[in-house]
Amino acid sequence: MDTPATSAAQIARSMHAMEMSQTETFDATEFRRALGSFATGVTIITTLDADGNKVGLTANSFNSVSLNPPLVLWSLAETSASLPAFRAATHWAVHVLAADQEPLSSRFAKRGVDKFAGLELDTGPDGIPLLRGCTARFECRTAFQYEGGDHVILVGQVLKFERAESAPLVYHSGRYAHATRRDDSLKPRSAYLAGSFNEDFLGYLLGRSHHQFFSKIRSHLDHEGLSDEEFYLLSTLTLKHDLSASELDAGMAGVLDDHSSSALQSLIGRGLAQTLDGSDGKAFELTLEGRACALRIISAAKAVESQLLERLGPGEGEVLKSLLNRLLSATDAGASALWQT
Amino acid sequence: MDTPATSAAQIARSMHAMEMSQTETFDATEFRRALGSFATGVTIITTLDADGNKVGLTANSFNSVSLNPPLVLWSLAETSASLPAFRAATHWAVHVLAADQEPLSSRFAKRGVDKFAGLELDTGPDGIPLLRGCTARFECRTAFQYEGGDHVILVGQVLKFERAESAPLVYHSGRYAHATRRDDSLKPRSAYLAGSFNEDFLGYLLGRSHHQFFSKIRSHLDHEGLSDEEFYLLSTLTLKHDLSASELDAGMAGVLDDHSSSALQSLIGRGLAQTLDGSDGKAFELTLEGRACALRIISAAKAVESQLLERLGPGEGEVLKSLLNRLLSATDAGASALWQT
Repeated sequence: MDTPATSAAQIARSMHAMEMSQTETFDATEFRRALGSFATGVTIITTLDADGNKVGLTANSFNSVSLNPPLVLWSLAETSASLPAFRAATHWAVHVLAADQEPLSSRFAKRGVDKFAGLELDTGPDGIPLLRGCTARFECRTAFQYEGGDHVILVGQVLKFERAESAPLVYHSGRYAHATRRDDSLKPRSAYLAGSFNEDFLGYLLGRSHHQFFSKIRSHLDHEGLSDEEFYLLSTLTLKHDLSASELDAGMAGVLDDHSSSALQSLIGRGLAQTLDGSDGKAFELTLEGRACALRIISAAKAVESQLLERLGPGEGEVLKSLLNRLLSATDAGASALWQT
Repeated sequence: MDTPATSAAQIARSMHAMEMSQTETFDATEFRRALGSFATGVTIITTLDADGNKVGLTANSFNSVSLNPPLVLWSLAETSASLPAFRAATHWAVHVLAADQEPLSSRFAKRGVDKFAGLELDTGPDGIPLLRGCTARFECRTAFQYEGGDHVILVGQVLKFERAESAPLVYHSGRYAHATRRDDSLKPRSAYLAGSFNEDFLGYLLGRSHHQFFSKIRSHLDHEGLSDEEFYLLSTLTLKHDLSASELDAGMAGVLDDHSSSALQSLIGRGLAQTLDGSDGKAFELTLEGRACALRIISAAKAVESQLLERLGPGEGEVLKSLLNRLLSATDAGASALWQT
């Protein structure tokens, strides 16, 4: 990412160190860490060089400056290979990246690759290349170039812009992050025993969320004549073509502990699952009818999920899932072995 | 927040509009929205005015510029009441706010209040006031002041900085947000039926998370000789001094549907809960012994929770809880009536 990113060694031998008379000597890595605690979005900035070659790089030093005239700025390292192109450019474009554009960010942060290969492009003023699918796009005319130590501060006047509703890609503490909106209406509520199990207790939230989510699916299970346990079994059986008894046990342990055996017999009795003779003992698989039934429930459950996630807002369902997955790793790293096959 | 924030009306009557010959006329609200899709941290910038009065304001136009010399910048509106102070200041300080400092951000974004009242302050170079408890703090000497349309771009040389490990306050699309790190090791895995219930399915994640979380608490329940159902009942009874049968039903509906009645009888039989004659029928409350038992389990469960949340990283447990609470509102807005009393 083209933000202040110089090794400690480079700094030590830099001529600029002579100018730092009023500055206490401090550790460059620590300074970068401190700067990194300010979260930013991620942008790709593009232009054309003097020979008409497309130039682009990833930067998080972007910010808004002025509304009237409409100005934005970003900073580019004096050592950047793209500096001559941007120094001379009359126009450049800023693309604010969406949460799903992390691969694009990584691509434009590299050197020596054809960054634009295979991308569908639009064309901006003076022929500059414009990327698609971003959260926002600003087509700019160079307004000012200011001195900024080992960087140049480029200020551009926005000629045209576009915006889309999508979750942003965020950069914080040296890595990519998600942003989710804060919800301040949800302060912990009082209860008469200190530390009661309320909305602020994770165990309660998980239990209640699971219960309420599941209650939306239950009518579909009723329609198929399936108990909760039979549903869990059926779901586990969709993961692999055939599951040994121990794999099935392991898969079920994540959601249900007992009664599995009678539920399995019930599924077999109804022709939804069948026994196989595996090389190392008994195994189980869904019958054709079992697969059809599982697919009907899966699509109903996915519809319920989509509806709920839509109400959480763009990108926020992904964050919830990511956090739950990390919680799962934290509670039991070994439990999901079945899912890793 | 002192970022480009001018009403459409102000822009329309601005003299600057004359300079925008190369700019297509566009909607100021839409332009601000497009700028807002670039996520930022939130800072408070402080200095002293010529009379020695403390001056401070909230800004999200901060960014890093240079490592060597160490430079940072931000932009201040020409119309800001604080402009004369910052124009004349030899020094100012940037405070990058932590996730729990939203109230401070709001306070310093207002006019006409004593922003520093009651705050514990440190003193920086030239006597400038420094706030505490931030994620990062930069003490700067004014390096450059550049023209930036309706804003001044202030570039400062960092003389000294501090950093703390804490979750950042984030601003995106005109409101506060959380940042959580992305976890790209968790891509959905393949399964033989398309759309199977795997780590990418929210219902599965909720069920499994709840199960694994609960399994960490179960040894404490075993120790107290409590079944899961008895535990849920006991938890619900910690919420209010006395609960009517219907309130208890409502509270339990969130986690458990049936068998509650026999579990309740068991708690009463063991002297942990007792019946009250309420004005509108039967009510229930914990006995002294029941409260003591609940408190033991609550503290054990909170310890389990803390351990897990610590493994998620700073501030991320709060995000998970906030998203689950919003999911609960989305699945059943009326279900948590008991918790709102």
